[in-house]
Amino acid sequence: MKFQYHLPVNLVFGKGSVAQIGDIAGNYGKKALIVTGCNSTKKSGLLDRVIGYLKASSIESVVFDKVKQNPLTTTAEEAAAMAKENECEVVVGLGGGSIMDCAKATAFLSVNSGNINDYIFGRQIGTEALPIILVPTTCGTGSEGNGFAVLTNPDTGDKKSLRCNAIVAKASIIDSECIMTMPKSILASVGFDALCHSMEAYISKIGQPMTDMMSLEGMKLIGQYLVPLYKGENSTEAWDAISWASTLGGMVINNAGVTLPHGMEHPASGLKNIVHGKGLASLTPVITEATIASCSLENKEKYAEISRCIGGKDETDCVSKLNELLANLDLSLTLSDLGITEADVNWMAENCMKVSAAGVANHPVEFTQDQIAELYRKAL
Amino acid sequence: MKFQYHLPVNLVFGKGSVAQIGDIAGNYGKKALIVTGCNSTKKSGLLDRVIGYLKASSIESVVFDKVKQNPLTTTAEEAAAMAKENECEVVVGLGGGSIMDCAKATAFLSVNSGNINDYIFGRQIGTEALPIILVPTTCGTGSEGNGFAVLTNPDTGDKKSLRCNAIVAKASIIDSECIMTMPKSILASVGFDALCHSMEAYISKIGQPMTDMMSLEGMKLIGQYLVPLYKGENSTEAWDAISWASTLGGMVINNAGVTLPHGMEHPASGLKNIVHGKGLASLTPVITEATIASCSLENKEKYAEISRCIGGKDETDCVSKLNELLANLDLSLTLSDLGITEADVNWMAENCMKVSAAGVANHPVEFTQDQIAELYRKAL
Repeated sequence: MKFQYHLPVNLVFGKGSVAQIGDIAGNYGKKALIVTGCNSTKKSGLLDRVIGYLKASSIESVVFDKVKQNPLTTTAEEAAAMAKENECEVVVGLGGGSIMDCAKATAFLSVNSGNINDYIFGRQIGTEALPIILVPTTCGTGSEGNGFAVLTNPDTGDKKSLRCNAIVAKASIIDSECIMTMPKSILASVGFDALCHSMEAYISKIGQPMTDMMSLEGMKLIGQYLVPLYKGENSTEAWDAISWASTLGGMVINNAGVTLPHGMEHPASGLKNIVHGKGLASLTPVITEATIASCSLENKEKYAEISRCIGGKDETDCVSKLNELLANLDLSLTLSDLGITEADVNWMAENCMKVSAAGVANHPVEFTQDQIAELYRKAL
Repeated sequence: MKFQYHLPVNLVFGKGSVAQIGDIAGNYGKKALIVTGCNSTKKSGLLDRVIGYLKASSIESVVFDKVKQNPLTTTAEEAAAMAKENECEVVVGLGGGSIMDCAKATAFLSVNSGNINDYIFGRQIGTEALPIILVPTTCGTGSEGNGFAVLTNPDTGDKKSLRCNAIVAKASIIDSECIMTMPKSILASVGFDALCHSMEAYISKIGQPMTDMMSLEGMKLIGQYLVPLYKGENSTEAWDAISWASTLGGMVINNAGVTLPHGMEHPASGLKNIVHGKGLASLTPVITEATIASCSLENKEKYAEISRCIGGKDETDCVSKLNELLANLDLSLTLSDLGITEADVNWMAENCMKVSAAGVANHPVEFTQDQIAELYRKAL
């Protein structure tokens, strides 16, 4: 057993804890760039509340509100230009995964020069970023728990993550009151994303004792709480459980990586701007079935554990339990439902080998490009 | 559910990994103070190997080899003077808990002026220390996983820890080859210490989801592997499991604290220089019995979980399973066996309320000074 575990997260968890953001941000600077979306944090009033909390701690703020789903490298560049122009000392990300990832990339680009794609593809290394504070408003991405920022290059369609400990947030404020305002349809897809993070880290070839333990806990919590929450249970306990599971999912992929479901989803959503959790819903059962059919006994036992976390008995009912969970979340989808056609398959399979090389390598069964194309076809 | 989790450990785990120490230390400086004991790392050859690894990375080193069991504040002061005199930029702690704690305090005192007791009792705050690299040679203390350094003030007998994230190691190299050379009698006492860390964090009033999860994992591993290892099984798997459980134990107390067993043991070993794990062995069953008798149903369920981790069925056999474990480790001891007498009880109870106020407060049943004195008497 050999591993390295280094993930300097600072998690401030609890209902109402966003009110501490001024005190926390005050440790890092007097001027903040708030990165957010164009809509939901304004409608919910969260943006104004955060501006107020910062102001009460004498922190001035400017707002960048142009982040959209599957954020573009060019958007992060635009936000970083705004941070530099305004001499911001700290970046606050307020929103879901796309927004937090864009905030992280913005903080990185504010102090590193050159082309972000060079950093994403590892041709250049950066070890610094502006201090980052994240407030998730969805529970799925787990971006608040890791040093990843997934971005799409609009020129190539490559969707791939910038990865370094410099973009681990100085503080992540996980406040279920900021999360429970999200629409149920979003809960379904982000909650399934969170499950995939823990599942993929758990089966990953580079998993380790720390991530195995956290992945299992995340899957158990999602197995117990996600469907009731989606069906209308609104207890703080359930929101806390799913929020915590989501953060755990973000943490485990930092060290154990993702595997083929995320690896195959990125080309699809990079190409067609698909909702990430929906892309995962269309691909995960197909990939899981093919993997269980040909993986080692040790990995079959891992799928048995996954199955038990979501109400099954062993690896033989893992796929049917996944499908049942997806049906309960109204996420029984195919890639065709999401606008992907047979004509996209070859590009996606090729792109998968390029942008998701690590995910392909981490998967318990190593599929070839042709086999990956075949899996895309099955998911159509 | 409200909590904060911030523990920036960097764990480099695995057999043979100490060979990386030169590369790792090279990130922090060109001159190291190696803090170690007077004997075991010399006899095992580890000290010379580490000096060689550092030299191969062009890192010069000086050795401070005067640390003894239950390290004194004055010893750390002496080591810090040596670090300053030699302009050391990094502190390497090579040994068991006493040595790692002394190394941490040395790194702290090398950059903070004033009296260390003021920092220990929170009258003064320090946020910096020299970079620390730890190589544990026992598996119990968990010091490699936290920001605590337990020291004894020779003037007052106060045994209490310095606590801050500045003394979390920049890297902890947990290499079972450096650990498996320890005598079996030491394995028994340090292994029981590791179990106590996880047990105490698990029942602590300030426990949280992250520490609960890690505590349970630590207890399960110790329940499964400690006695076989003590009885002569020498597999890498077992040494890895106990080493990992020990690190987990160190991590959980950083955020969940300790409770009454550690709280009551510190006055005893501060007074009589007792082996820490033996002090815990004499006190833990007595304290656990009294606690289970009067704690809430929720806490009884926690003791049931603890019992299951060490082979029991529920809270009703938790104490007998603890006693069985201690018997298997040849640790069925009373405080009298360790040189404590009735005449020491009142000082210990009074000292416990002073140096272990947090541990007393974290315990699931809050005992008074008189009740604590009574527990000491029962353990005689």
